Amino acid sequence: MKFFSVGILGNGSAVPTRIQNPTSQIVQYGKSRFMIDCGEGTQMQVLKYHFSYKNLNHIFISHLHGDHFFGLPGLISSFNLYARTEPLYIYGPPALENILNELLKVSATRLRYPLHFHALKGSETLYSTDQFSVLSFPLKHSIPTWGFLFKEKPENSRRLKKSFVESYSPGIEEMHKIKNGSDYIAADGTCLPNEDITIPPHKPRSYAYCSDTSFNPEIVTEIKNVSVLYHEATFMNDAEDKAAEKLHSTAAQAATIAKMANAGELLLGHFSARYSDKIPLLEEAKAIFPNSLLTEQGTVYRVDEY
Amino acid sequence: MKFFSVGILGNGSAVPTRIQNPTSQIVQYGKSRFMIDCGEGTQMQVLKYHFSYKNLNHIFISHLHGDHFFGLPGLISSFNLYARTEPLYIYGPPALENILNELLKVSATRLRYPLHFHALKGSETLYSTDQFSVLSFPLKHSIPTWGFLFKEKPENSRRLKKSFVESYSPGIEEMHKIKNGSDYIAADGTCLPNEDITIPPHKPRSYAYCSDTSFNPEIVTEIKNVSVLYHEATFMNDAEDKAAEKLHSTAAQAATIAKMANAGELLLGHFSARYSDKIPLLEEAKAIFPNSLLTEQGTVYRVDEY
Repeated sequence: MKFFSVGILGNGSAVPTRIQNPTSQIVQYGKSRFMIDCGEGTQMQVLKYHFSYKNLNHIFISHLHGDHFFGLPGLISSFNLYARTEPLYIYGPPALENILNELLKVSATRLRYPLHFHALKGSETLYSTDQFSVLSFPLKHSIPTWGFLFKEKPENSRRLKKSFVESYSPGIEEMHKIKNGSDYIAADGTCLPNEDITIPPHKPRSYAYCSDTSFNPEIVTEIKNVSVLYHEATFMNDAEDKAAEKLHSTAAQAATIAKMANAGELLLGHFSARYSDKIPLLEEAKAIFPNSLLTEQGTVYRVDEY
Repeated sequence: MKFFSVGILGNGSAVPTRIQNPTSQIVQYGKSRFMIDCGEGTQMQVLKYHFSYKNLNHIFISHLHGDHFFGLPGLISSFNLYARTEPLYIYGPPALENILNELLKVSATRLRYPLHFHALKGSETLYSTDQFSVLSFPLKHSIPTWGFLFKEKPENSRRLKKSFVESYSPGIEEMHKIKNGSDYIAADGTCLPNEDITIPPHKPRSYAYCSDTSFNPEIVTEIKNVSVLYHEATFMNDAEDKAAEKLHSTAAQAATIAKMANAGELLLGHFSARYSDKIPLLEEAKAIFPNSLLTEQGTVYRVDEY
């Protein structure tokens, strides 16, 4: 199975604190890296936590509140100074393209690498390979906002049992056939049925990013059965009115969405600066969805099979 | 004498490192604070080093390279979230106004405090009170760039000698007259000449900020006799060609300007990420201008009388 993870660079909300930076994450699948959001100071967080930009060619910006993209112009500029040559693909709300062009213009920056901008619309597939894809879907916030779903494609072929391979040493062509459902005829003519010598393919893993968003059960269809869900939990339930007013969510609401979506694990983040102790947020979520975690900056979470 | 200082929030150049943030400084004069430049992450540096925004109503942006202003949109936004009501005055290159307006628009931010923008032009007085003023002057860089001079106004009146006040306890009106040059007639009719009972006024102090700039002796007239000069020293003299190409300065060139301007003290900054050890830069500067210092992030430097 390929390595699949999400690393947290910032888990705070709009106002930074000494321990909370604005939002940014790096998703890794195999050797590829993808950035989600790029709040102010993301570059410094990458340095601080020894994260890497290697094979990071796609950046997804959820919406144009500053705490989700004010670090992007600096990162684009630093990539230039690092002598980047690989193309960079940025997916974001339509107005972002003009802003980036304007900032490049006033700073007289001539990029030495190609920058491709894709304006987000409704729900669509943004990126796709044989094994992996990234999809966008709308969230409900005070300005147009998108969530992102990173998902492995289902394996078509079954996997060979290790014990069978060790005992019979089948050839490459034979192994290929067995993976696709054939039985195996041993040297003595015995037929080994496919189901005895193979196991089913891995269940495809997925990671969904939902921030910023009000409590919105409509997104459940987009993220049904997701392995790991990152859902904003800006407030606790005692500030439910404030959450509704600001189109944010509470920890309990995040957990409710995780439960409705039948998620494997819930990662909580986008914490308001008001909570110096976040254990109560975790307890509030766990009461509804036990497999909840508080994200920590600098920590990498594996996206496991559930 | 009023407290007069400059605090360093970032002393690095374009590419941030683990120990160098992009440029920002806070000048304090009495109770007033002034920010110069606002590179990405300035807010986090203010938090980290326990600097204050109290009475910080004026921000001066030297030029539109990202490492000098990419932190400004976030700061403007945080001031709003901190429920600021005092007006904020921003002085910067003309194109900055449109960028800030555009960022406020796309993020649907309605500021709750008045934001006044002043477009920099040639040399001019930007701010002036009875005691203090801030002036701009052009620097020579790859895009339009300004330097700033913060200066105390000369005191018109002489200061009373402590020994005279203690011995004769003059009245308030008498003290006022003596400060303006009168002699003092004691109770026994003796005349004490003004020069015996007063000392000359303080020499006015000043602070000049010159970053980013190529080596440019033309600025010497603008900063002549400055008490403390901050001058960029992106490179060392062995990279003089690179400095010239990028319109930056070397440590030796910064020291030459300090010497030509008859400055009291030279603060070096805007260091290239290539120098992990900065002592050689200091030595290069000291060989030309002995009263040179390497700036440290989080440190506050007093602007003394020289």
